[in-house]
Amino acid sequence: MSDAPEAARPTIARGLEGVVLCETKIAEVDGTNGRLTIQGYDIRELAGKASFEEVAFLLWHGSLPTEAEYSALRAEMAAARALPDATVDLLKAISSESTGMHAVRAAAGTLSVGEESVDSLDITLARKRAARLLAKMPVIVGNYWRFRQGLPDIEVDPSASVSETLLHLIKGEKPDPAIAEALDAYLVAVIEHGLNASTFVGRCIISTDSDMVSALTGAIGGLKGPKHGGVPGPVLDMLEDIGTPENADAWIRKHLADGKRVMGFGHRIYKVRDPRAQVLSDAADKLAGEGGDRRLHELVKAVEDTTVRVLAEIKPGRDLYANVELYAALILHAVGIPSELFTPVFAVGRTAGWTAHMVEQLEDNRLIRPNSYYTGPKGKTFIPRNER
Amino acid sequence: MSDAPEAARPTIARGLEGVVLCETKIAEVDGTNGRLTIQGYDIRELAGKASFEEVAFLLWHGSLPTEAEYSALRAEMAAARALPDATVDLLKAISSESTGMHAVRAAAGTLSVGEESVDSLDITLARKRAARLLAKMPVIVGNYWRFRQGLPDIEVDPSASVSETLLHLIKGEKPDPAIAEALDAYLVAVIEHGLNASTFVGRCIISTDSDMVSALTGAIGGLKGPKHGGVPGPVLDMLEDIGTPENADAWIRKHLADGKRVMGFGHRIYKVRDPRAQVLSDAADKLAGEGGDRRLHELVKAVEDTTVRVLAEIKPGRDLYANVELYAALILHAVGIPSELFTPVFAVGRTAGWTAHMVEQLEDNRLIRPNSYYTGPKGKTFIPRNER
Repeated sequence: MSDAPEAARPTIARGLEGVVLCETKIAEVDGTNGRLTIQGYDIRELAGKASFEEVAFLLWHGSLPTEAEYSALRAEMAAARALPDATVDLLKAISSESTGMHAVRAAAGTLSVGEESVDSLDITLARKRAARLLAKMPVIVGNYWRFRQGLPDIEVDPSASVSETLLHLIKGEKPDPAIAEALDAYLVAVIEHGLNASTFVGRCIISTDSDMVSALTGAIGGLKGPKHGGVPGPVLDMLEDIGTPENADAWIRKHLADGKRVMGFGHRIYKVRDPRAQVLSDAADKLAGEGGDRRLHELVKAVEDTTVRVLAEIKPGRDLYANVELYAALILHAVGIPSELFTPVFAVGRTAGWTAHMVEQLEDNRLIRPNSYYTGPKGKTFIPRNER
Repeated sequence: MSDAPEAARPTIARGLEGVVLCETKIAEVDGTNGRLTIQGYDIRELAGKASFEEVAFLLWHGSLPTEAEYSALRAEMAAARALPDATVDLLKAISSESTGMHAVRAAAGTLSVGEESVDSLDITLARKRAARLLAKMPVIVGNYWRFRQGLPDIEVDPSASVSETLLHLIKGEKPDPAIAEALDAYLVAVIEHGLNASTFVGRCIISTDSDMVSALTGAIGGLKGPKHGGVPGPVLDMLEDIGTPENADAWIRKHLADGKRVMGFGHRIYKVRDPRAQVLSDAADKLAGEGGDRRLHELVKAVEDTTVRVLAEIKPGRDLYANVELYAALILHAVGIPSELFTPVFAVGRTAGWTAHMVEQLEDNRLIRPNSYYTGPKGKTFIPRNER
């Protein structure tokens, strides 16, 4: 379809709201009922029960792995864990002067180095490549943090899980199993969320028959945007500012009266509570029961209850509920991830979902390219520079 | 809008054909009439007349630059020409084992290093950043080639144009003005082409309030796909295989009878001859008149005439005409660009269009995110791994 010059002004789908790009078997985001289904499983069936690598397998293959399939996947990821030397050197050179998502994007962009058949569009190979790319993501994020802090290289057992690898690199020692389990629950909770902006970017890039490294790098760039990947630091800042549950009501009323947004509330799709909030809240509860600090959790719950109550009073009908960010901040803080790494760690989890969408796109590929409607001038004549 | 479970199957817009994302003042691609308008100018008014940097300014600012504006732009680009050390080191490390677009994507992904306010969404700054990013692109592509060949670093006058910089780095000496002018005509011809897949990727990434380096890196990844950036090597291979104009008819008939595609023909939007074919043909004519070799040009014309005639006979109504690739191969070969660099050099030109779209998107930004329609299973219950 052309943008023909005499055409009547077409309907403009700014933001592509209401446009349905494709069928998918990967996930359903039901914003009206607050449900997230992943390959047939409600997210509450998976988070806290299945390991992150199991759910990644589910996303790529459509079923949870048997013991044999799971061992094969873990072996494949262990073998692919090490970064290319060029990636490590790049991270060493840029980490001190780059924020997390800039560094992760730059490093991910180099992951084609040394990959055989990196431009192949074979589906079986694409699933293997997804596992290989996912294996490297925690090493990128963890090493970024180490190099940024001026910390030396350390060896991490390549057979460690994604969560264990991340925690070992960030904290410098093998993590407590309960902590790794809580991080797994987080990674599963954010592993996939339908055609969000970054996933869509990945599908668009692979739709040109480009490669998965290019699509992953683009998706990371999309997640980097505050409107999508969020700004998790401010949630913690807000909680610190509120301080105690008793202060929540007055703080939130004043904040809203000043015309400011309360961080961690509202979502373009969910008109009820984000189902991932509950999953993350449960994981935080479990961790607290194993010796963690409950105070932040109680503060978050108070902030949520108060904000929902006050918003319903001040802005009735706006349906603003807690989104994933509020409880993500709680759980990531609880497992000891610094807030500068919240979005990079989110990217590690979402890499499984991104790559599953790339595989699905490749299975029935078609170039994604909308139209635009030209409203600029026409018929101009070139005038040389010295006569302008 | 949710993908509600009980909803009737919606209309699926695979490839987003017929969907109009936005109004634009940047360019109009009129596929029916074979016209390309850039900020009011027919592409034939610009290519071969305006310099590449002038048309880049036109894309970013909406008008061709005055002498003063042009000098300021060239000075800005000269000052931004040098790559960060980390980018040069990365290119040195990866060029021998990376094809061009992988290396260009990886290098572009590092261009946030040392950039002040890289995450600012200020429009004036975005236009400056566009010029700075464009200034670096020919240095990335040229150095990639040098390092791949094992050639040493060389100094290029930072005040050289984009075309001069590219040619100097690739060939190792200051280019003949007629050659640089012909490359400028090519870069102008491909500078912008509406909401193509890579430009759309760039707009999607910036729509999350991400940054221009992330959007550029994603766009390069999109252009890398053979369905979009093309596979220019095979056009030259085909021309070599055909050899002389007299062989064209028999070769093309046999090729089509074998069920193969003739390279350089057909376009999703143009149903007539791609207007850029003429512009590039004219530039090649001009260069040949200045001492170049006319034989390849005559062969290309014979292949075009024959293919159009034979296709009209064999596949009537298919409207397959020469696209930009056929003549791009001709002009790039004529100015001495190796075929491995055809898509990277295309990316240098298109960086101006990509960044113009990013600026336009930022001027009235809204998150771009379509929906999907879930057709997978539901209501599955988690079974532990050892019971599967």
